[in-house]
This record gives sequence, structure tokens and C-alpha cells, in this order.
Amino acid sequence: MKVFREINELRTYLKSERLASARQGKFIQTGLVPTMGYLHEGHASLLRKARGENDLVVLSIFVNPIQFGPNEDLDKYPRDEKNDLQLAEREGADAVFLPSVEEMYPVPTKTKVLVQQLTSRLCGASRPGHFDGVTTVVSKLMHIVQPDNAYFGQKDAQQAAVISQMVADLNFDVRIVPCPIVREKDGLALSSRNVYLSPEDRNAALVLSRSLLTLQSKVEAGEAVTVGQASEDIIHTISVEPRALIDYVEIVTFPGLSAMEPGQVLAEAEEEVLIAVAVKFGNTRLIDNIIVTKKGEAIHV
Amino acid sequence: MKVFREINELRTYLKSERLASARQGKFIQTGLVPTMGYLHEGHASLLRKARGENDLVVLSIFVNPIQFGPNEDLDKYPRDEKNDLQLAEREGADAVFLPSVEEMYPVPTKTKVLVQQLTSRLCGASRPGHFDGVTTVVSKLMHIVQPDNAYFGQKDAQQAAVISQMVADLNFDVRIVPCPIVREKDGLALSSRNVYLSPEDRNAALVLSRSLLTLQSKVEAGEAVTVGQASEDIIHTISVEPRALIDYVEIVTFPGLSAMEPGQVLAEAEEEVLIAVAVKFGNTRLIDNIIVTKKGEAIHV
Repeated sequence: MKVFREINELRTYLKSERLASARQGKFIQTGLVPTMGYLHEGHASLLRKARGENDLVVLSIFVNPIQFGPNEDLDKYPRDEKNDLQLAEREGADAVFLPSVEEMYPVPTKTKVLVQQLTSRLCGASRPGHFDGVTTVVSKLMHIVQPDNAYFGQKDAQQAAVISQMVADLNFDVRIVPCPIVREKDGLALSSRNVYLSPEDRNAALVLSRSLLTLQSKVEAGEAVTVGQASEDIIHTISVEPRALIDYVEIVTFPGLSAMEPGQVLAEAEEEVLIAVAVKFGNTRLIDNIIVTKKGEAIHV
Repeated sequence: MKVFREINELRTYLKSERLASARQGKFIQTGLVPTMGYLHEGHASLLRKARGENDLVVLSIFVNPIQFGPNEDLDKYPRDEKNDLQLAEREGADAVFLPSVEEMYPVPTKTKVLVQQLTSRLCGASRPGHFDGVTTVVSKLMHIVQPDNAYFGQKDAQQAAVISQMVADLNFDVRIVPCPIVREKDGLALSSRNVYLSPEDRNAALVLSRSLLTLQSKVEAGEAVTVGQASEDIIHTISVEPRALIDYVEIVTFPGLSAMEPGQVLAEAEEEVLIAVAVKFGNTRLIDNIIVTKKGEAIHV
């Protein structure tokens, strides 16, 4: 496994790998797994999916400053390069791209990639400018790596929808592969930010997955749950937990992220439905979601 | 010469050409010449430059609706596909990409690529949103063609600066090649929009190049012309022509497009200096410019 900290070195490596295989008449498939590091089993599942579908797997680790707001956790975002490299090696990554902030932004960027509409709700409303930072850095990574496939976790369902929209609108020649949420045995969705949680908050945070998975069971059991009822149920379940401060509970179409009528029965919607929550425990903001298909089957949990 | 109207067909062709040459251990160089058609000798000079530097030359012709304002000339923008294809063939283009609006924008784009600061002055001030449309469509074309080199005329000096900024900021793996303005014998800068001019306006429009080339002569002769004097001289020369309505006369650094002090001597500036004018003749808006280097040598005229 190779480790690159400079854009030009990574490019030279990729070109040479591509040329070597092209000499044998084959265009190799490259998979990109873009992350902010502090890798966990969720990231490992992305790497395994990428490993199964590509000749060359590139993992990027970059805590992207322009997707953090001024009062967010950029400075304390957890980092563990040694452990990350071990996990990458174990999951068979061919190359790890670990650029510095100066390498990615030698001068402040004047250019931004913006996706409108899809970024106005959910995390886009709570974190102004966040998705502009995400789409801008993902554009940069795509141009550097030129992957055939790129892997994103569905825990950030809005992010996956926004990036898919960007790729379609701008004709990026890449396939976006959304991958299911990975959970602890007790239901907590894996997140690098879980490390912030005190034992008490860690326990309280189970209310997120519990509220979503309870709803999922009802829908799968054939109950005609409406958008309004689902929203009320989730808010009620979370509010019982005194440590939890709800940022949002939103039920929208997926991947269009459009508002839905409160009376709409989830299982009868014409599109897939995203039920997404963001909740703060102390200074730690966690997100979780499920997606319900129109056949009433919950997926991506 | 091949003509493509669909993105997927062009991509298939490019991949097959690249694979064929890669089998012999060579990565071919692709040059892109993006245009809005109604080609003239200025475009031909871009094609010749591209032909000399690339294995594969792709000309795109697309009148991009999202770079036109609501009261601009989108509907009457001149078109002549037959003549364009003849010129492309004559200049040795390998492929012409001629997409429909529906092919490029099957649904209205939610994604925009924006370059800040550089787009706030000059044509960016006169044509709000224009450059967002340009950078967005150029991003799409880059992703479709994946060129090694892309050719832009310096008549749109601000456009060349904005696109170079975008390419640097977003790590596009392409070299931007600015090419000199091509002029008629009497000095008029070639433009597809010259076709709009009545004989009287065509004659009056010579005031643009005359004002700029007079300034150029002075600078080349070693005169210590300041920004303020240059601006006054150009405004005075153009104002003598009653058919001319000045949109702007701007003197800024190039390629940073920053404002300059009125007392700054052009030939002593630390960066190159762009002297750009936009003038209306009836409904037709023309632009022209010169660039003065810090050695007092005028280039790109």
C-alpha cells in the first residue's frame, strides 16, 4: 500500500498504473473512498465494497476545513493516522491520499461548487455552507483521482443525494455507490464523532436508532404510518431522553429531498422516503436515518 | 472528422481512441476547443494551435443558455452549422461535439460552479450570472471530453482568467491555453457578434481597437502612462464616436483582475495589466482588450 501526501505524486502513480495496464489493452477501474479519517467499521465496509469492484482502490483522508462552520468541531475533530493506515492496509487499499490543508488549499479557494435546493433542508439548514464545502472538496478529489466509482456511506444520506446530483448535473464520469449504514450491536450508527460521547451520552444516543428502527418495524409490519405520525412518534421517543436536544426530525423524498404532506402514508409514497434525524448530546451532534421504499420495505439501515 | 450530438457517443469514441493508442503504450493528448459556433478566423487560430499540440482535437459547439441573461441575445445568437463543420474539417479537428440544449441540460441544473472575486468586475458586473454559466458549462465539457489542453481566446480575457482560476482551485487535470486576439486588417477584433453590426456601426466600432492600440503604441514607445491617464484617453477616444455607448473601460491586474491605483504607471506594475473595454453599438455589445506586461510590452493584441 502506498501513501501519498502530494497531489502530483498521487497523479504520477495513478497514471503509471493506468498506463501499465493499458499496455495490455485494459483500462483499469479505480475506486475512491473519500473520508475524513478516524476510520471505523463503516469506512471499512466502503473499502471492502470498493475492493470488490475495482482494480485500484484509493482511500483519501482529509479533514476538509471549508465544510466546517465557525462554531463547529474542526479543531477537535478526532485523528489517528496510524490506526487509519492499519485499517486501510487490512482492507486492501492500494493507495492512501493524506494531503495537508496547504496541499489542498495553497491559497483560499475562490471557486465553489454549489448544489441548490437539495442543500436547503436537513443538515444544510443546520450547517450553512457545509455542503458547498463538501461538493467543492469532492470535486477536487474527483479531479485528482479520476475514479470510475466513488463510495459514500448512507449515514450521510443527504450528502450522498447532493453528490449524486452534482455528478449528474456536471457530467462527472463516475458512478456514485451509496453504502448501507453500519451499526453497533445495540443500534448506534457508527460515526467518528461517537468518540466525543461520555458513557451517559453514549447510552442516551441509542434513542436515535431506537426511534428509527421502531418506525421501520411498524412500516414493515404493514402499518399505514403517515408522515405526520412518524414525525410525532420519533420526536416523542427522542424527547423522553433528557440528554437529547433535537436539531431536526425530517421526512422527505429521496433522493430529491422534497417536503412531503403530513397525511402521506410512508409506504404509499411514489418515491423512496428518507426519515432523518439530527440530535445534540452536549456539544456532540449525531445524525441517523432510515430510507423507506414505496413497497414499505426499509433499506439502508 | 466525426460529429457527435450525444454525450455517450462522444465518450465511447474518446475511450476507444485512447484505448487503441494505450495498447501501444502511449497516452494520447486531447485538445478541447470550446465554442458557441458561428466560427471565424479567431476560432480557426485556436483549432490550429490545438492541432499542433495534440493527438486528438475536439471542437465543441454549444450556445449555452445559462450564460445568457434574460435580456441578452440568446435567441438571435448567430448559427451556421454547415459553415462551422467546413471550418472544423479544414482546420483538422478530429471530432465535433454539437449537443442540443436537452442533451446538456435534460433537467434544469441544480449545480453551479462559481468563481468569486474575479467575476465581480468588468463583464461580470454588466452581465450578472454570466460567468457562473460559463464555468458550469466548461466544467461539464471538461468532464465529458477530459482534455489535456483547452484553448480559449484572449478576447474574452476575463473568461480566460476565471477559467484558469477554476482549474487551479478545483484541480482539473488540464492545461488552459490562452490564445491571442485575431483582428481584421482594420483592427476590429473578430467576434461572432460582429455579424449584428450595420455598416455604420461596423465602421464606428473601430474606435475600440483604435483607442487600445493607440495606448499600446504609447506604452511601447516608453511613455509613462498612468492607469488614470490611460482610462481617460480611452474614454475620450470612444466618446468622440456618437454611435458608441460605453459599458465599461476597466484597467485591472491580470490574471488577478484586481483594481489598480489611478497613479500607477502601466509599465511599472508588478503584474500584467489588462485594459478592457465593453461598448454598445445599438443592441450589439462588443468587447476588446490589450494586456500590458510589466516590461511595457503589449501582448495578446
